Amino acid sequence: MAFIKPMQRHPANPLIQPCDVKPSGPGFLVQGAFNPAAVRFGDEILLLLRVAESCEGGEEEVAVPLMRFENGVGKPDVLRLAKSDPQVDLSDSRYVRYRGQTYLSTMSHLRLARSTDGIHFAVEERPFLSPADASESFGIEDARIVRIDDAFYINYTAVSGDSYATALVSTKDFRTMKRHGIIFPPQNKDVCLFPEKINGRYFALHRPWNSEFGQPSIWIAESHDLIHWGNHRCLLRPRVNGWEDERIGGGAPCIKTPKGWLQVYHGASAGHTYSLFTLLLDANDPSIILKRASSPLLEPCEQYETGGFFGKVVFTNGIVAHDDGRVSIYYGAADKSCCLAETTVEELLASLDR
Amino acid sequence: MAFIKPMQRHPANPLIQPCDVKPSGPGFLVQGAFNPAAVRFGDEILLLLRVAESCEGGEEEVAVPLMRFENGVGKPDVLRLAKSDPQVDLSDSRYVRYRGQTYLSTMSHLRLARSTDGIHFAVEERPFLSPADASESFGIEDARIVRIDDAFYINYTAVSGDSYATALVSTKDFRTMKRHGIIFPPQNKDVCLFPEKINGRYFALHRPWNSEFGQPSIWIAESHDLIHWGNHRCLLRPRVNGWEDERIGGGAPCIKTPKGWLQVYHGASAGHTYSLFTLLLDANDPSIILKRASSPLLEPCEQYETGGFFGKVVFTNGIVAHDDGRVSIYYGAADKSCCLAETTVEELLASLDR
Repeated sequence: MAFIKPMQRHPANPLIQPCDVKPSGPGFLVQGAFNPAAVRFGDEILLLLRVAESCEGGEEEVAVPLMRFENGVGKPDVLRLAKSDPQVDLSDSRYVRYRGQTYLSTMSHLRLARSTDGIHFAVEERPFLSPADASESFGIEDARIVRIDDAFYINYTAVSGDSYATALVSTKDFRTMKRHGIIFPPQNKDVCLFPEKINGRYFALHRPWNSEFGQPSIWIAESHDLIHWGNHRCLLRPRVNGWEDERIGGGAPCIKTPKGWLQVYHGASAGHTYSLFTLLLDANDPSIILKRASSPLLEPCEQYETGGFFGKVVFTNGIVAHDDGRVSIYYGAADKSCCLAETTVEELLASLDR
Repeated sequence: MAFIKPMQRHPANPLIQPCDVKPSGPGFLVQGAFNPAAVRFGDEILLLLRVAESCEGGEEEVAVPLMRFENGVGKPDVLRLAKSDPQVDLSDSRYVRYRGQTYLSTMSHLRLARSTDGIHFAVEERPFLSPADASESFGIEDARIVRIDDAFYINYTAVSGDSYATALVSTKDFRTMKRHGIIFPPQNKDVCLFPEKINGRYFALHRPWNSEFGQPSIWIAESHDLIHWGNHRCLLRPRVNGWEDERIGGGAPCIKTPKGWLQVYHGASAGHTYSLFTLLLDANDPSIILKRASSPLLEPCEQYETGGFFGKVVFTNGIVAHDDGRVSIYYGAADKSCCLAETTVEELLASLDR
């Protein structure tokens, strides 16, 4: 598939690869450094990567990394299973299924990467955020960052043997953090907080899983404090168009534009191909949809997007809108690396009419 | 199975049956009058029944009742499918599955029933609460009521083509109502609000569906206003004991006792048998489990519990604790009728030690 306007993939892609990231400890192998949150912090662009690590294991075994929490104290652990066991199902590279239970083949944490030009990043040597309690014992994934006044709110997916949900922390300096617990209960991910109050209320896009009466769709909710959420409403549903037939979910926090709130969301096809789409929400009431693009903004076509750990995926949860109208869309490619596509607010708005 | 202490089924069971309920309109057939919320209101005991209605249809068709909402205005509609169509799946009496979509075989609304003795109820002729927007287009189900000061808060399951979730309304007089929208997003039901603030916060039990990394469990959440919820934590998980292996969910709102908050929850076995269990939570922090009964308080064994619309079900979402220590547990039997079991706070607490 050819290059798709109005996005320019950066020639230095992928910007960050697993080999650029130091494992969090002995016995861990970095399989993915992807799906970065992105934010401007002083003179820097910060990415908060999802670093997915597997465990070293023998050739004939699969080693599942996880954390055990006892009395609030976490300890790394490994579940070792024989690949030859007929009850071990490895058909999806992301999962290990065994005796009716699902585990993750990798455990993720969040790692900071810093840059002054937005292209060359120095990845920190230690995790920024690691699983901190039993609700995170299978890992933490796919952060989003919004700045509100002088604080940065970071939400991410917390995964455990009790399901997956969205948790929130906040920081002012990217050194110390305050934990706010799970803000969207299972099964929920792809949460995008809006960066300011709108008519006196905070808003969030979120993606409750839906297995019974419909398909996984984007919902919107309201809050007075970013921690307690209510007035949940279904906002946007999948469409049968070959790109987003199966499920959709929010991307990075919305960008404020003169035309309304601009969202870049992802859709997944029946074949698990992930593409990106633009969506425009009303400036004064983001539960009102103004425009939805009819075709993708970005589809996986480069080798680093079609191959990788879980192929055919472009996924964004980190976008930086610059003062001059340029927009840097950081995105995860194939659950493996961090990439960049460059565009402008003008081009993104124009994509809604094509 | 023999009578199980410490519960006394009332000899007048079932107290309310489908034949006691007038259909909500022409063409509807009442299939179930069950799963009542219960509350004392002045000199009366009020039940808020779930009334499930099917549509009259030809012998060779299945008629799915639903509501269509356009510009906020709802209109009853019927989806008619040929029973002979191989794509029509009627294997579970509660559902109609067709071409990958799931519908409900009945549409539910909430109906008031009034009594002065708690045994003989007069069922009102008109619905108390009917589907009011697109999030309720497949019906509203399984209410719970708590009184806080002079207001009654009623939560219920809202079902639509966008999934199921828990919505909240409040009333002071059971005539006029205020809607507070969806408070727990999909897929979520079995919500029990606590009837007072505990250490400055409201609490709720809720049951997020869980299909990926564990089993459907009871969670606890916190709120300052009953409308916006956060700090979600997994509280209680299913156990492999033949009664609650598959999933559990909250029952009626907790009863305040000298020993702590007393909850009667339900568990479902692999064979979809629903039983009731007692649970004791800490008086000052209901996220702390003090005791969990090792065997059921009530199992389906009477004919009206084992037969019915969906058999082998006892399910409570309405309990009245009287001033003299007696407890009236109203419960739905087999998704068909309303029943009563009588006990005392003392007996319920003792059940936790057996």
